[in-house]
Order: sequence, then structure tokens, then C-alpha cells
Amino acid sequence: MSRGLDYEVINENVKRVAYAVRGELYLRASELQKEGKKIIFTNVGNPHALGQKPLTFPRQVVALCQAPFLLDDPHVGMMFPSDAIERARHYLSLTSGGLGAYSDSRGLPGIRKEVAEFIERRDGYPSDPELIYLTDGASKGVMQMLNTIIRNDKDGILVPVPQYPLYSAAISLFGGSLVPYHLEETANWGLDINNLRQSLNEARMNGITVRAMVIINPGNPTGQCLSEANIREILKFCYQQKLVLLADEVYQQNIYQDERPFISSRKILLGMGPPFSKEVQLVSFHTVSKGYWGECGQRGGYFEMTNIPLKTVDEIYKVASISLSPNVPGQIFLGLMVNPPKPGDISYSKFVTESKAILDSLRKRAHIMTNGFNSCRNVVCNFTEGAMYSFPQIKLPPKAIEAAKKAGKVPDVFYCLKLLEATGISTVPGSGFGQKEGVFHLRTTILPAEEDMPAIMDSFKKFNDEFMEQYDDKKGYSRM
Amino acid sequence: MSRGLDYEVINENVKRVAYAVRGELYLRASELQKEGKKIIFTNVGNPHALGQKPLTFPRQVVALCQAPFLLDDPHVGMMFPSDAIERARHYLSLTSGGLGAYSDSRGLPGIRKEVAEFIERRDGYPSDPELIYLTDGASKGVMQMLNTIIRNDKDGILVPVPQYPLYSAAISLFGGSLVPYHLEETANWGLDINNLRQSLNEARMNGITVRAMVIINPGNPTGQCLSEANIREILKFCYQQKLVLLADEVYQQNIYQDERPFISSRKILLGMGPPFSKEVQLVSFHTVSKGYWGECGQRGGYFEMTNIPLKTVDEIYKVASISLSPNVPGQIFLGLMVNPPKPGDISYSKFVTESKAILDSLRKRAHIMTNGFNSCRNVVCNFTEGAMYSFPQIKLPPKAIEAAKKAGKVPDVFYCLKLLEATGISTVPGSGFGQKEGVFHLRTTILPAEEDMPAIMDSFKKFNDEFMEQYDDKKGYSRM
Ligand SMILES: Cc1ncc(COP(=O)(O)O)c(C=O)c1O
Ligand SMILES: Cc1ncc(COP(=O)(O)O)c(C=O)c1O
Repeated sequence: MSRGLDYEVINENVKRVAYAVRGELYLRASELQKEGKKIIFTNVGNPHALGQKPLTFPRQVVALCQAPFLLDDPHVGMMFPSDAIERARHYLSLTSGGLGAYSDSRGLPGIRKEVAEFIERRDGYPSDPELIYLTDGASKGVMQMLNTIIRNDKDGILVPVPQYPLYSAAISLFGGSLVPYHLEETANWGLDINNLRQSLNEARMNGITVRAMVIINPGNPTGQCLSEANIREILKFCYQQKLVLLADEVYQQNIYQDERPFISSRKILLGMGPPFSKEVQLVSFHTVSKGYWGECGQRGGYFEMTNIPLKTVDEIYKVASISLSPNVPGQIFLGLMVNPPKPGDISYSKFVTESKAILDSLRKRAHIMTNGFNSCRNVVCNFTEGAMYSFPQIKLPPKAIEAAKKAGKVPDVFYCLKLLEATGISTVPGSGFGQKEGVFHLRTTILPAEEDMPAIMDSFKKFNDEFMEQYDDKKGYSRM
Repeated sequence: MSRGLDYEVINENVKRVAYAVRGELYLRASELQKEGKKIIFTNVGNPHALGQKPLTFPRQVVALCQAPFLLDDPHVGMMFPSDAIERARHYLSLTSGGLGAYSDSRGLPGIRKEVAEFIERRDGYPSDPELIYLTDGASKGVMQMLNTIIRNDKDGILVPVPQYPLYSAAISLFGGSLVPYHLEETANWGLDINNLRQSLNEARMNGITVRAMVIINPGNPTGQCLSEANIREILKFCYQQKLVLLADEVYQQNIYQDERPFISSRKILLGMGPPFSKEVQLVSFHTVSKGYWGECGQRGGYFEMTNIPLKTVDEIYKVASISLSPNVPGQIFLGLMVNPPKPGDISYSKFVTESKAILDSLRKRAHIMTNGFNSCRNVVCNFTEGAMYSFPQIKLPPKAIEAAKKAGKVPDVFYCLKLLEATGISTVPGSGFGQKEGVFHLRTTILPAEEDMPAIMDSFKKFNDEFMEQYDDKKGYSRM
């Protein structure tokens, strides 16, 4: 008889989970690092780990909230600007017991109010703090929503492919079915509503009840920004098909082109008027991990619910209560993100300078990277319009695919492992995100420091072009 | 056709979850507070919310880690002691990117090493950092373990009754079966191994595969401390029955008697030698939320795995990866908790003074509360040997039980609601934790400030004795 945690008898859904971002490549990279090799971790959108400095003002405020006794120290004004001191007092006044007390399981009411005000300013429609729940990062919110929706393996969730593996992993964990819809690489990773309809119909023919649809805008790993018209079509589709729209908008600050600024699904929905604005169930996610904040380790996020019945909202509250409270410092970061220094505040100009420098540099890096990839043999890459990733297609020659098979590896895993060993660049193979049969990609973040970028791209090009030379059989490439 | 988040069609397991600590009583208390009534929240073990001050040293260290630029400020020595500065540098050296970077999904290796060293010092046996995973509070760790173990509703988990509702709630959420074993109120809430065996056999006769057993030591809500002999019996039982032991030891610092100091399940297990020490699967949980720390809002915790096969450990790692990383400030608090200032450090004596004051006062409050309850009509209460709760039995007269029925309330909910309306004391009815048929309790924390305690107990006594007078029908009480 097995014991409760013997591998043979644990939850099959747990075993089914695949999580590429921290998968084989990451584990190998960690090993190499232990052995002393210099690794460039571009496998996760983790800006501070690659040298991005935190914004000063929010860190000052949270430091003061952590050490409220500093507020009574006569020297405090020598080390902290007065608006940081004031803001720390403000947040402390919203808690009963400071950062060390559990908050309400939905988060501190005062911060949920700041989030609602931010959404109202952003979208032009009022937002209800009672429908905003704070979370330990967006991941936890997404997981909670999927757990609420999924009943069994006949429940399907439409997920873009390529997708961020949080979705596939969580759907496996909760025992549901992922229903893929393909983004169009040749149309700059755009979303074609006909693809969507076809995926839905196929799933239904297979007995799947499709319950919800995920969009990631701006996209991860694909970096595309959805147009207003596109989102409108999606919302109509969700209305017709009675799907919950899960709108992952964690990269809303990360936009590197000017034709399609970020516009929230909620703003478009409410602008569509009834019946859409009253009927479509929408859950929108945001985080302090991305944008020019990049405060990944703090684990702050929220989700906002639109058109969700109150009885369901209460159930979600109840489940959130099981783990008592999202972390309170993360909530304060979220409050600061949605309510940053304003013109006239002492810290305003420094805050703007810092934010702008980060965003400008990300935009430059998006260009350097796309251009770098496109200069490589057998590599084509769409421009990173938003988010933090580049997702080049690697046209692997048949010989390379054969070599991979011999090594017992998926071809893109084979390529990425070789890249890692040769250059220390730790990427994620496209197969971790989903891609069309016979087409191969890798994902890298655009986060290495701007000054390191040229060297990294050179080192990539050198590896890639040699790899292609080695495996080039003069018979052509894997099909596009 | 329903939409995906309409109440009728959401996950039934979500609906099945009951979570009393933030249930009807809490919601009513929140309402009353909004209406301006002064509420004493004793429903959750949330020390800082009731005025406990955070320990100074850890807050200094974490504030510096949040604002690392302070370390370069020439004034830093005026506001922070040198050992806090040194420690902040130490923790920053363990991260790549400070508190703003995702850590490994298991937590920072350097902090897991500090935890392993703590466990070795505490238990006298070496501990392996690779088997220690850091979590956003102990709750998340418990949930992850239950999710790994439970496959379907035929999988059972032995849980003490009365129990902390995290367990019942999470078991419902993951679709398993709770197998209750009763603690003996008349034996100071001790655990009788015959009860345990009987519960197991009953469950098996009902087709349940019992996979794991939970102990909470010191107990919540019951406040008992398990003896070494008792834990040894439990471990033998787990060995014979091939059960994973989930040892919730979050209150290990909260001990208010001297006969039975805390002793970890792991220490006893390893002391038992083979086959037990090599065979029994044990997962132990700890947190920064309790003890004299009470840093609930920071969400820091860990679990340590003993005798869990590596393949299972890897699966647990993979699932932890889905949400990327526990919050990093919480990890630093955990590091500080397991590695506090040492004799000779500048901050040592202040740290000890602060900790001791909290612990001494908790001990006094445990006595004041037990004695207070025992002075009330129809109330009997075991002494709080450990943890943070008092769990008096309320012998409700038949008339009160009838009145409750008329009001459509469970009798103890009825009592607790009346108590709340009359006094502002927000407790949790015993039915939220499980109790024997016809026996009623309430749970309160011992956390109100020591100086407020006499007034609170007076106000309780006044309410209770009047309540008993009102419903006393001279025909006797509900049966013990
Ligand atoms: C599309 C997307 N959604 C959600 C997340 C989760 O972010 P967090 O949990 O840190 O808020 C990420 C992180 O990379 C992401 O790329
Ligand atoms: C017995 C027990 N276990 C676990 C927890 C969870 O604590 P946390 O998630 O804050 O670490 C609590 C909190 O009250 C508890 O009483």
C-alpha cells in the first residue's frame, strides 16, 4: 500500500500541470549557475532581477509603513521627503494594526477605493470598490477565477496560443479543458474572430462546455496590442456565446508603439451600451509586477469584476477568506501604483523621470531585440508592440530536428538548451506556450540592461548562425 | 443558458466551502462597525489589529531592504542600529534584484538555509533546505499539500474536531472528505488514540481511503499542548496506517504552561528511529503570523517535508511555480524569525525585552480569560495551555435553544450574535469549528490588550448572566 504522498497516488491533476517558464531550461540554467557559469535569466519577466532599479517614492512610503516608529524620529525629514511621510501616514490610517495585521480577505477597503478611482479616471466610468479584490499578484487572482469556473474536464476555457503558461497550468490543476485559439503570427499575432469561432465549435462538438475566454493584452509571449475593434468583436462573441471574459491586462503600462494605445476591455464594454454592457461577465486583472514598476517580489495585484452576480462575488470572497488576507505591503504598492505622485508633489518630478527612463529604455530594447533577431539566419520576429517579451520564430532545418529527436528532445528545447550552454542566455522554448505543428519559437524577455543588449544580441547571433550552419543540409528549412 | 460565473453553474466545491472565522458573525460585526459601533474583533488571531506592537529589529531590517538606497545615506546610522544595517545587507545579498524580484518559487535559497539551521538547532537533527518551501503564510502551504494529496471525494483527511476551519474549507474546495476525530473536552482537549482508530475504521467502512492526518499543536481553537507520548502514539498510528502527518505547528512559540513545552513532531519522529523515522511522511508548517511576532499581514511561512519521495517534492515545486514566487518581504521576516538577534548583538536586549513582554502578557491574559469564563453562569472553560484562543463551553438552556430555532439560527450563532449586539465582542460560534451534538461553544482570541481584559470579561459576564437569566426555565440546561 502506498503512503499518502507517494508519487503514484498523488492528485493526477497536479501531475498533469506543465509549467515551462520554470521548466527544464530553467532548471538547467540554475544548475549551470551553481557551477559558476554566468546566466542571463530572460526566462521570466522579472525586471529587478536584471538590474532595473525600483522607483524611489513607493519604496520610501513602504519602508516608512514597515517601520512606523521612524515617523516619530526627529531625523526622519533628513532621509524621507515630506510627501512620502504623508503618504505613509495615509496608508497606516487605512489599516488597523499596520502592515502586521491581516486585512479583510478582499484587501484593505481604502486601497480598493483608490483602485476604483484609478479605473474611473482611466476608463471614464465609475467602478465599485466592492467588486475589486486585491490579490498576491495577478497569478493568484487568475487561479481563483479559474477555480471558481471549472467544475470538471468537460468545462473548457478558450486560451490564446501561444499563451502564458499560467493559464494552461491552472486549467490542468483544476481539472478543466484548455480550448486553444491560435493567434496569427503572419498578422502580427492578431486575433482572428473566425479562428475563435472555429475553436469554440470544435470544442463543443467534442462535448466541451466552453465557459470562459482568456485574452492577454498586451500579449505574453507574443507582445501584440489588441485594437479597439478587435476587443469589441471579442466582447460581442462573449455576449453571444455567454462566455466570461478573463482580461489579463497586466502589461497595460508597457506599450512601445503609438498607433494602438492600451484600452481596457472594460472601457470598451461599457461604451458598447446595453445589452452588452449589462450582460457580458468580465474579470480584469492587474499587478504591480509589470509596467515600469516591476515589483514582482512584492506580490501585489487586483481583479475587478463586471456583471458578476452578487452571490458569486460572495462565494469568491468566501474562498479568498480561507487564506485570510493578501500580503499588506503588496496592497500598499498597489495603492501607490494606482495613485502615484501628482504634479505639484515634492516627489513628482523624480517619479516621472524614473518612470519615463524605464519605459523609454524598454521601448529602445524592444527595437534592438526585434532587429537583432531579424538579422539572424533563419529567424523571423514580429515587433514587440507591448509587454516584455520577444517571440522570434526559429526555422529549424530538418537536420537539426533530427538531431533533436536523437537527443530525445523537442526541437525547440534542443535549440534553447544549446543556446543556454553556449551563451548563458536562458530562454523558454516556444513549445511551452503552444505553437503550430512544425513551427518553432523561443521566448526571451526584453529586460536585460540596455547597455548589455548589443552584446547579448551579438552572442545570440553568433550562436544561432553557427547552429544553422552546422545543421544546414542545403535541403531547406522546416516549414513556416 | 447561464453565463460562466452565474451562481447556478460555478464549481460546486466552491459553494461547499464553509469558513466560519469570516462568516456570519464577522460580516455582522463589520456592518455594526460601519454603523459606528465599537467592535472588539476577537474572531481572528490577529495580534497587531488589537494593538500588539511589532518587534522593532525585524521591522528595521525589512524597512532597509525595501529602501536599500537608505544604506548609502550618511544619516542611516542615526536612525538604524548597525546590526539592522548589517542584516539588511545580508538579506539583500541573498536576492538578485532585492525585494522587487521574484525569487525561486520555493523561496530564496539563503533563507531556506537559515530555516534549516533553525530546525536543526531546535530539534537536534539536520534539516535539508531543499525540503523546505517558503510560502505566503502557513495557510497557502497547507492548501498546497491538501491539493497534492486529494484526488476525489473518496480521499479522506483525519482532522481534529474542534478544528481550525482552514482544514475543512480547503478539503471542501479540493473535493475531498473530512474525517473528523474528536478531541476530549473533559480531558483538557486531549487526543485519544482510540477515538482516532474508531474514526479511521468508520471512514474505511464508508469506502473512504484515508490518506492523511492533521494535528494542530498547540491547538486552535482548543489551546491544548500535545504531550510527547501522545505525538509518539500518533506517529506510530500514521506509520501503521500509512498516513501523511500534517503537523500544524504555527503556535510553537505560544506556550503558557511549563509542564509540556513545545516539541516538534519531527524531533519525536527522528528520535523514534527506523522504521518510523525513515517511513512516516511528515509535513510541518510554521509562520511569522503567530508567536510573539504576530506579523499576519506580511504573509510569511514555510513547510518542511520529511520522507516525501523526490518525485513528489518536484511536483510540489512545479505547482508552486504557477504563481511564481512567495512574497519576498515575508521571506525576510521568516529569515529573521528563525535567526533573531543573538547575545552580544546591539539589538539583542531590546529584542528579548520586547518578545518577553508580549509572551508574558499573553500568558497573563490566558489566565484572566479562562478564569473570567469560569466565573460565568453556565460556562465552563479549559485553560489555554498554548496558541491564542479560549474555547469556553456555553451550556445553553432549552429555552434559549428554542428561541434560536425560532430565529432560524444555530443555537451558538444565536448566542454569539446577541453577545455581539450587546457588547461589541466579535467571537466565532463553536459550530464553525465542529463540536459534539447538542454541546455549544464560542471561540475568542486572548489578544485584546491586557489592560482592556478585565472590562471585556466584565462585559461578557454581564451579558452572559443576563442571557442565562432570561432563558433559564428552571428545567435544566442543554446536556453536557
Ligand atoms: C500575462 C501574465 N499574466 C499574469 C502574470 C502574473 O504576474 P503576477 O502574478 O506577478 O502579478 C504574468 C507574469 O509574468 C503574465 O505575464
Ligand atoms: C492552526 C492554524 N494554522 C494556520 C494558520 C494560518 O496562518 P498564516 O496563514 O497566517 O500563516 C492559522 C491562523 O490563524 C492557524 O490558527
